[in-house]
Amino acid sequence: MKAKLLLAAALMSASRAWADIKVVYHLSEGIPQASRAINNIRNHLAADPKAKIVVVTHGLGIDFLLDGATNQMEQPFAGAVADLTGKGVEFRVCNNTLVSRKIAADKLVMEAKVVPSGVAEVAKLQAKEGFVYLRP
Amino acid sequence: MKAKLLLAAALMSASRAWADIKVVYHLSEGIPQASRAINNIRNHLAADPKAKIVVVTHGLGIDFLLDGATNQMEQPFAGAVADLTGKGVEFRVCNNTLVSRKIAADKLVMEAKVVPSGVAEVAKLQAKEGFVYLRP
Amino acid sequence: MKAKLLLAAALMSASRAWADIKVVYHLSEGIPQASRAINNIRNHLAADPKAKIVVVTHGLGIDFLLDGATNQMEQPFAGAVADLTGKGVEFRVCNNTLVSRKIAADKLVMEAKVVPSGVAEVAKLQAKEGFVYLRP
Repeated sequence: MKAKLLLAAALMSASRAWADIKVVYHLSEGIPQASRAINNIRNHLAADPKAKIVVVTHGLGIDFLLDGATNQMEQPFAGAVADLTGKGVEFRVCNNTLVSRKIAADKLVMEAKVVPSGVAEVAKLQAKEGFVYLRP
Repeated sequence: MKAKLLLAAALMSASRAWADIKVVYHLSEGIPQASRAINNIRNHLAADPKAKIVVVTHGLGIDFLLDGATNQMEQPFAGAVADLTGKGVEFRVCNNTLVSRKIAADKLVMEAKVVPSGVAEVAKLQAKEGFVYLRP
Repeated sequence: MKAKLLLAAALMSASRAWADIKVVYHLSEGIPQASRAINNIRNHLAADPKAKIVVVTHGLGIDFLLDGATNQMEQPFAGAVADLTGKGVEFRVCNNTLVSRKIAADKLVMEAKVVPSGVAEVAKLQAKEGFVYLRP
């Protein structure tokens, strides 16, 4: 019986070790944080191409996902967002933020997906879907 | 035997999926972060009323839990803290911070509970009590 | 059979409860954050001397690990870093940051270890090595 339990434990550890890493990037600060995040995510995927990355945004964190958004050097974010989406990165936007800031969802770039609550999404991804946390 | 192991794994995954989500909100920055956090937690509970939320504060993060504390618009925090406590949210304050900042524990609102170390509390909640992390 | 599963679950929970806590401190902001982190880690180890702490740095977060680095009060970081290393704390530096900022690895204090990607390291420690997250 003890052997079975040890084997079960070993199997489960092993299954976790095999799995691809899933990471939620949590953004709520605005354009400078978003610029850092884009750069971080590129480096992350270069080091670990199989990593699954979901970017959850709320508050000022959604700004880089508005149509026509540019960084501190007036460069558009659109190309980077499209490029990362092509590599499997997902971008999620808090609906509470859209409502409180009176921003229509059609002002978002098409890659962005609206979720009911940014913070609840960050928690759910960790608690229910095996994601780890990273705040850029 | 393999079937038993798979069943055991499935049962454990299922038990995790049933459980309510537990989240530690980590605050160390001061009043603006606390204002955002109060708003975030309200939205979090609106989206997921069964979420268990513990707010751990240290450094400048404890300021909104001092008696008479107000936000950037001179509005008191007391009502929001009492209201969230009524919804099951807990507020914990680092004793190391109280000592180093020479603040007596009786200057805290009655909802605040003192813990020996804020950072050790943030780690323990995650490592031992199944909480996930969120920095507002 | 049900008893065996419950026992297996209990054993695994127990083994998690026995284990020492492992924490990744994530630093990317610069000297003020590093000063806070040094103080946080001292308090953390005072409250939980068996905690395993790994500090992962990238971006401006690496600055306190450069030879001769000083804090906002012109005090050198070297003593604190050496002292914490003696207590088992590890300091890791992102190679992508070294390359993009054109900093040679020999400018780092000897306690610092270079890793390919800071963000990938933060994710890996959590997903594969049982670390919890803390951003000071």
